[in-house]
Amino acid sequence: MNYRMIKYITGWLLIFEALFMAVPAITALVYRESELWYFLMVMGGSLLVGGLMIFRKPLSTTLYAKEGFVIVALSWIVLSLVGALPFFISGSIPNYVDALFETVSGYTTTGASILTAVEPLPKSMLMWRSFTHWVGGMGVLVFIMAFVPLSGGHNLHIMKAESPGPSVSKLVPRMKTTALILYSIYLVMTFVEFVLLLFGGMNAFEALATAFGTAGTGGFGVRNDSIASYSPYIQIVVTVFMLLFSINFSCYYLILLGKLKEAFNAELRAFLLIVAAAIGIITINISHMYSSVGEALRHSSFAVGSVISTTGFATEDFNLWPSLSKAILVLVMFIGACAGSTGGGLKVSRILILIKGVGRELGSLIHPHRVKKVMIDKRPLEDNVVRSVNVYMVCFVLLFTVSFGILCIEGHDLVTNFTAVSATINNIGPGLEMVGPTQNYAFFSIPSKLVLIFDMLAGRLELFPMLVLFNPQTWKK
Amino acid sequence: MNYRMIKYITGWLLIFEALFMAVPAITALVYRESELWYFLMVMGGSLLVGGLMIFRKPLSTTLYAKEGFVIVALSWIVLSLVGALPFFISGSIPNYVDALFETVSGYTTTGASILTAVEPLPKSMLMWRSFTHWVGGMGVLVFIMAFVPLSGGHNLHIMKAESPGPSVSKLVPRMKTTALILYSIYLVMTFVEFVLLLFGGMNAFEALATAFGTAGTGGFGVRNDSIASYSPYIQIVVTVFMLLFSINFSCYYLILLGKLKEAFNAELRAFLLIVAAAIGIITINISHMYSSVGEALRHSSFAVGSVISTTGFATEDFNLWPSLSKAILVLVMFIGACAGSTGGGLKVSRILILIKGVGRELGSLIHPHRVKKVMIDKRPLEDNVVRSVNVYMVCFVLLFTVSFGILCIEGHDLVTNFTAVSATINNIGPGLEMVGPTQNYAFFSIPSKLVLIFDMLAGRLELFPMLVLFNPQTWKK
Repeated sequence: MNYRMIKYITGWLLIFEALFMAVPAITALVYRESELWYFLMVMGGSLLVGGLMIFRKPLSTTLYAKEGFVIVALSWIVLSLVGALPFFISGSIPNYVDALFETVSGYTTTGASILTAVEPLPKSMLMWRSFTHWVGGMGVLVFIMAFVPLSGGHNLHIMKAESPGPSVSKLVPRMKTTALILYSIYLVMTFVEFVLLLFGGMNAFEALATAFGTAGTGGFGVRNDSIASYSPYIQIVVTVFMLLFSINFSCYYLILLGKLKEAFNAELRAFLLIVAAAIGIITINISHMYSSVGEALRHSSFAVGSVISTTGFATEDFNLWPSLSKAILVLVMFIGACAGSTGGGLKVSRILILIKGVGRELGSLIHPHRVKKVMIDKRPLEDNVVRSVNVYMVCFVLLFTVSFGILCIEGHDLVTNFTAVSATINNIGPGLEMVGPTQNYAFFSIPSKLVLIFDMLAGRLELFPMLVLFNPQTWKK
Repeated sequence: MNYRMIKYITGWLLIFEALFMAVPAITALVYRESELWYFLMVMGGSLLVGGLMIFRKPLSTTLYAKEGFVIVALSWIVLSLVGALPFFISGSIPNYVDALFETVSGYTTTGASILTAVEPLPKSMLMWRSFTHWVGGMGVLVFIMAFVPLSGGHNLHIMKAESPGPSVSKLVPRMKTTALILYSIYLVMTFVEFVLLLFGGMNAFEALATAFGTAGTGGFGVRNDSIASYSPYIQIVVTVFMLLFSINFSCYYLILLGKLKEAFNAELRAFLLIVAAAIGIITINISHMYSSVGEALRHSSFAVGSVISTTGFATEDFNLWPSLSKAILVLVMFIGACAGSTGGGLKVSRILILIKGVGRELGSLIHPHRVKKVMIDKRPLEDNVVRSVNVYMVCFVLLFTVSFGILCIEGHDLVTNFTAVSATINNIGPGLEMVGPTQNYAFFSIPSKLVLIFDMLAGRLELFPMLVLFNPQTWKK
């Protein structure tokens, strides 16, 4: 294990986290909030410790795959532990585990909250919550790697471990340039949403926080009722952007290059189909509850966009919708967004690979002597990608089961426990019943909250980094 | 597709089904029930059609893998369609889909019922219900193959398609002898339970029906309250036998040969561990609801035995137990019994392979250059077994999801729909809420019942035969 390299990268992480906190610090300055000092304290401490850690560059910057996983998992834990400090020391969230829950929920773009009301919080704290979504959405280490001078081509291991989806494709030969292109797209799209929200009558603070929450597909809002009390125009803008941020960012790059055919690949087509089908069925299913089909369509589109993008904003309490609509939302929760987006869930491409894998297996039962590969976009997939996706699914089910079992010890109803795990492991936020869109996670005990914190991190980092970190085998000589 | 062979085997199937019906016919004779005539009518028709179908032996008895799947799936459907006739034409179950549901539930050893009360039914009908469990438990085609003169070694394809668990091991070189040994063990164990139940004060009818229901791990009872009103002695006998019938029958053969070490293989050890853990936790969790720990232990053992063996008998309404106990029962539902037993579920050996597969994948992330095989009982598993188990799991999740989605169209609560699918696909019987142990499946609409019928068959035949049968690829030239 290259401990020096781990120390070095963690050091840079702390420095970057201090820089990220400039955003809420400036908010505090603008609104003349005394919380400014708490942010400055944490920033100072973070810069100091980080500075000491990067003082000596490691001799060897070589990273093996397992070190990539360890660094990614460890970085996200450190990031969250430090990110929780402003909430805790300012007294905005008096319990440290709660503050950690909120921060992990932010960075992992889950958006599950332990706050019973957000409006009493200082604006700088709300901005920090929403900004963690934006930072976590695209991945922190990828961001750092775009700026920090690190020699060696071993960054791919880190990018692989941090990026969502079954396989990472480089847009351009250089990793650094790829990261920069993706971040530019992210920045521009966030800015466009911000401007459109301003046009809708939001003030700059609300528009920025909402844009951050949408871009990271996080879901923390600045009002107690999330997006419900905003105008239909704003709800529609948020719906469209939730869906836009669920699409693989590489597609936008391909569209910019004019490669439309490549952009509309199998995953994107499947994603659009699922979205349309879910919206259609739910609209019909709930239309009798609203004054017009248009209104039903707006709410169902918002709910589907919110859930499939794993954002978790709400306009309506879908816990009150009929079973069919609830079931579709739960299914869509698990499907999630496209690979290479900021959204969570299993990812559409994984579902595609799983279904095609089953098809191939059935085919091989029918024609045992015909060897077939799983094809995606007319290209054959390597067998180890298919195997790894299958194992991923099994791993997911196992972690889900264990988490669900532990939550049940507390004795809340099964739907609450089931959807609490599903909403955290898929990084969505709201579930059903006691964790429904109008509820929160405050009532869970500390052990349950720790399980959910683990699930949020495991879900965001796609299981393996967290499992490698906590695997004794990793630490054996 | 060897259509002549399919016809020939289906013919034998009809003849055997007529013979099976002798059991309820004799019951009707003993209790002087007029239902005797309906059984004789169906027996006569079945013998006639079957006789015509086996009149000409097919020239080629060669069966390919896909034909094995098709024959198994088709046979079970024909078996159920004919087996439902006595219920339907006698008017005991006036709706044919309901009669089919009950018969499929019987043969697949599910034990889910659409009857609101069983006691008003004639004794011969109750005996037929329970006897279908016994027939279906060990597999019908394996039984036929033990008696029908079929040349060629291609029976393995049928046995593979009909037997529970990820791999079939022959006990002795000859398939026929293997089938006979297994059936003898089955017969002797059923007889021992029958005698022990007689000692407990049951009459011959009740003891026989209950022994059939336990041996097949089915769960149809002859009293409205299942096993609740019987003495603790009888409840304990049933508990023990439910667990005994969940163990791979090969283990008993090995024990008879004195090969104890081989008998207590990894799967059996894991099974015993899961049973002990589940009983322990639930006993503690429910002890405050009963007058003594002993009583809590008796009810928790019964419930765990009933669910893990996928029998579905009930002494208590576990729907009223705390969430933790309910969650454990739901988890245990999915695990199910050992491979090569009469029980359903995913099977303990599959869960073992899945977990070890995940372990290997994590290991290969940590040490990419160390190639490791999945080991069970110190023997390496073939990669294609591991792959096929993974695909099985994915297939299971997909079928589960689609079925759950269709059931939700009706609008019942999510727990009812979720556990109804889980109780049928795992061949258990009772679920929670509206399909809890004291409830039944009568309220579902016809389309939902058809989905559940499909799930019961798919679950019993381990997915692939039903999926191959309904796959258009199978029928292409």
